[in-house]
Amino acid sequence: MSIKYYEDFTVGSSETFGNYIVEKDEIIEYARKWDPQPFHIDEEKAKKSVFNGLTAAGSHIFAVSILLIMQREIKVQVVAMLGIEKLRFKHPVRPGDRLSLTHECIDKRESENKDDRGIVQNRITLKNQNGDDVLTYIDNMLISKRKKV
Amino acid sequence: MSIKYYEDFTVGSSETFGNYIVEKDEIIEYARKWDPQPFHIDEEKAKKSVFNGLTAAGSHIFAVSILLIMQREIKVQVVAMLGIEKLRFKHPVRPGDRLSLTHECIDKRESENKDDRGIVQNRITLKNQNGDDVLTYIDNMLISKRKKV
Repeated sequence: MSIKYYEDFTVGSSETFGNYIVEKDEIIEYARKWDPQPFHIDEEKAKKSVFNGLTAAGSHIFAVSILLIMQREIKVQVVAMLGIEKLRFKHPVRPGDRLSLTHECIDKRESENKDDRGIVQNRITLKNQNGDDVLTYIDNMLISKRKKV
Repeated sequence: MSIKYYEDFTVGSSETFGNYIVEKDEIIEYARKWDPQPFHIDEEKAKKSVFNGLTAAGSHIFAVSILLIMQREIKVQVVAMLGIEKLRFKHPVRPGDRLSLTHECIDKRESENKDDRGIVQNRITLKNQNGDDVLTYIDNMLISKRKKV
């Protein structure tokens, strides 16, 4: 696996990857611990809610997006995640949904203070098997440059 | 417990609550599943990383913030979470850190389309036991108004 530095990001390039099935048991187990609302943990109550059935917690879906990125980008030389903008939960995630992620580099610039790194901005889109966007956000990552020899 | 509607939010009011201890085992267990990077799951490797010790995953800390809000705000008549802005991980979370949350209403406005609801904007600040901000963001929540009788 090759290591990816600041120089290797191209504005406008995008990749789609991942194939994560959100199982019913995982929705309930995650939400029991982290977001125990009836429409996340109780099938019967969820049917009577505005969601008309079980849906995954927002923090669960955010965690899935980070997992997919980390599995793919494990060799990116990240110095730090600077922040996230415009995070939107656009569509409920249901038991059995199959999620994939599109990672698009939308901007990059050199660090003003340190010449060994730069900031890369990416648009993240998590979609279900029907092509619906379920989660979107923009991240800002501080990434090392290749060391000069 | 009283139910909280759109009318009950006051711009400028804030509350601090929660007392969540992030145990080492939880940091490792969460990250093994959702963000398996060495500085989240392996004490020895974490000591040699830029973090100089184990730190909690970002998605884990975000989940803690939602949990604290949900435990407190279970009776708020939320229609939907519209989105999150300016999410920043400001300080590492270490094993044994004790986190509390400040929830400040910074803006509210009536829905333009439906007269039974409004949008409330809150600034969320998660702090550790030393008073360091560890996570900050702004959320936008769609909240029901009290039903007219």
